[in-house]
Amino acid sequence: MEKRIVYVDNAATTALSDKALEAMLPYFGGHYANPSAIHDYGLYAKAAVERSRRLIASSIGAKNNEIFFTSGGSESDNWALRGIVEKYSSKGKHIITTAIEHNAVIKTAEALEKQGYEVTYLPVDKYGQITTKQLSDAIRDDTILVSIMMANNEIGTILPIKELCDVAHKRNVLFHTDAVQAVGHIKINVRELGIDLLSISSHKFQGPKGVGALFVRIGCTVSPLIYGGGQEKGSRSGTENVPGVVGMAAALEDAVLHMNDNNKKIISMRERLIQGILKIPGSYLTGDPKNRLPGNASFAFEGVDKKPIVASLSKEGIYASSASACSAGSVKPSRILLATGASESLAYSTLRITLNEHNSEADIDYLLDTIPMVISDLRNSI
Amino acid sequence: MEKRIVYVDNAATTALSDKALEAMLPYFGGHYANPSAIHDYGLYAKAAVERSRRLIASSIGAKNNEIFFTSGGSESDNWALRGIVEKYSSKGKHIITTAIEHNAVIKTAEALEKQGYEVTYLPVDKYGQITTKQLSDAIRDDTILVSIMMANNEIGTILPIKELCDVAHKRNVLFHTDAVQAVGHIKINVRELGIDLLSISSHKFQGPKGVGALFVRIGCTVSPLIYGGGQEKGSRSGTENVPGVVGMAAALEDAVLHMNDNNKKIISMRERLIQGILKIPGSYLTGDPKNRLPGNASFAFEGVDKKPIVASLSKEGIYASSASACSAGSVKPSRILLATGASESLAYSTLRITLNEHNSEADIDYLLDTIPMVISDLRNSI
Repeated sequence: MEKRIVYVDNAATTALSDKALEAMLPYFGGHYANPSAIHDYGLYAKAAVERSRRLIASSIGAKNNEIFFTSGGSESDNWALRGIVEKYSSKGKHIITTAIEHNAVIKTAEALEKQGYEVTYLPVDKYGQITTKQLSDAIRDDTILVSIMMANNEIGTILPIKELCDVAHKRNVLFHTDAVQAVGHIKINVRELGIDLLSISSHKFQGPKGVGALFVRIGCTVSPLIYGGGQEKGSRSGTENVPGVVGMAAALEDAVLHMNDNNKKIISMRERLIQGILKIPGSYLTGDPKNRLPGNASFAFEGVDKKPIVASLSKEGIYASSASACSAGSVKPSRILLATGASESLAYSTLRITLNEHNSEADIDYLLDTIPMVISDLRNSI
Repeated sequence: MEKRIVYVDNAATTALSDKALEAMLPYFGGHYANPSAIHDYGLYAKAAVERSRRLIASSIGAKNNEIFFTSGGSESDNWALRGIVEKYSSKGKHIITTAIEHNAVIKTAEALEKQGYEVTYLPVDKYGQITTKQLSDAIRDDTILVSIMMANNEIGTILPIKELCDVAHKRNVLFHTDAVQAVGHIKINVRELGIDLLSISSHKFQGPKGVGALFVRIGCTVSPLIYGGGQEKGSRSGTENVPGVVGMAAALEDAVLHMNDNNKKIISMRERLIQGILKIPGSYLTGDPKNRLPGNASFAFEGVDKKPIVASLSKEGIYASSASACSAGSVKPSRILLATGASESLAYSTLRITLNEHNSEADIDYLLDTIPMVISDLRNSI
């Protein structure tokens, strides 16, 4: 089969969509004013920021004044955790999260532990799932925040956020979800879910890098993480990234508009890929086979190391990752896979393929032709 | 005189330069990979980030590994203050700054005060200057950080950073400077200045919004403000804003390359503007007449309110601001002007005009024709 370039690392980042770029371009060198300026140029930029806020809010069923712009998913996660615990520390110092959160949550929680907070990391089952009973049992009188991701970045498992949030709320505990991998990929309505805070990252749904948002439910207040000029109603200072928020809004609007059609195509490709890859001896699908992100096909292969897999595939023109992008260079076993009960050796042998609608059946053909060959070669070379 | 559009709010923000946009475009939809990915696409993006880091480092006389990318000047300021005090709080809890800092420093300092830190806000003279003796007298055994801006955003005063830093270092106190208004506009060499930390904002020198940097001298360590995937050597997590840092580097390289020629032109225009405006009765130049940013021409006018000045000028096609962009919508008197000893009424009547090399002598003609008329009309309408 002829070599081709196949980018299947869309959970790490996506190409900026043409629509997003087109929406952004007028705000670089043309309508470039500072949205806080009160002259006509400033008001024009301000209007663009507020239009973007409305678009993003309506994409997740939120109100305009519940969307706060940030520099990305990591800042949103950090802000959600710190902003809540600083505000509510008089009520208690206990936080609940899970063992499979992104490091933006895990590392923030660990930093809070050093400051005297107590954190419970809920364990997960073999699919990366947790139960409402687990959460219910963990909640204490001094619990002030539950932070559970909507969908895992490595293994694609979608967690039962509505049910988990209900449990937290019955005990008067606030609920944050890191929805970085979910927004723009699965249907989200913050009102139906009932959640208090939700993290968004633009570059995961073909918007620009360096911009994101935090949904904060009306009535819920967070201390700022970044103080200064008082932008975002005093909650997040810094000159607004006008092209960034405009591009994020355009990308999200487009993602939501075409979500059903795109997901039909993506899931069909993914299922063919999974079925084909599982024919490789000693291969395993990781994550929940049913409740999983449309684009995620993540695997483990007995007796092969993750870094050589990704490197060998790269030579063949296939750009995938071993786990999360952030830990791509790591030589440690996948923390997520270990949490699901996988053996250490299997947790060293992960491959994450994440598709989007720009992938084609011909890409799947090429993956199904190349991956078994690469795995076989690596096994034979040991 | 025929109406024209004159943008003179360049301290609030600048248009993205063509060179910066050109440098950014390939990294949006083409070389869009996550720089942490270890496949070939990721390595290409990583190389672009590191090239940008080298360019920015060399522009301010720093080493590559002393530049950390952030989402902008506000984050850099917040991070510098929090990152240092968290790291060095065992040594002491006293911070020194000035009364004329940007709110990104002032509001962070105020938040730290609530957490038990003690902050000294050094007063300034009529030009916005402070002396080495003032700083020396304020340093105590428990002082852990001095944060003094390189140049003020409202009145353009350039402070004697090298001398002030020497005083701090003689007492073994770390020195941070908010150089958001200075980088790309005046010559900066961090080694010659001796400073430990320096904040940079890209959109103040015709780079993109939503990106900045913090210089942290080797040997000086700061706690992270944003935890997560471990980007920026674990100091600042979050997927790198590849187009953003590439654009920032291109803009800064260009700004430094043409700084001398641009400043000759800008200062000449500014001086003509100042001389002309000061012919208006009851008008004052604010800030230091000598040690001031090339583009800054800031004024106060007896008996006129700042908001109507900016609004009236906007109707005439002149886009300026009353003070800083962040407080443009504020109805309070200028905190900076009050600090310089101006009366409250004068602090209500400020106008900040900030030029760059894209302004022309024809712009100055138009300003000199329009501003006296606007001030006169406003005075007559009271």
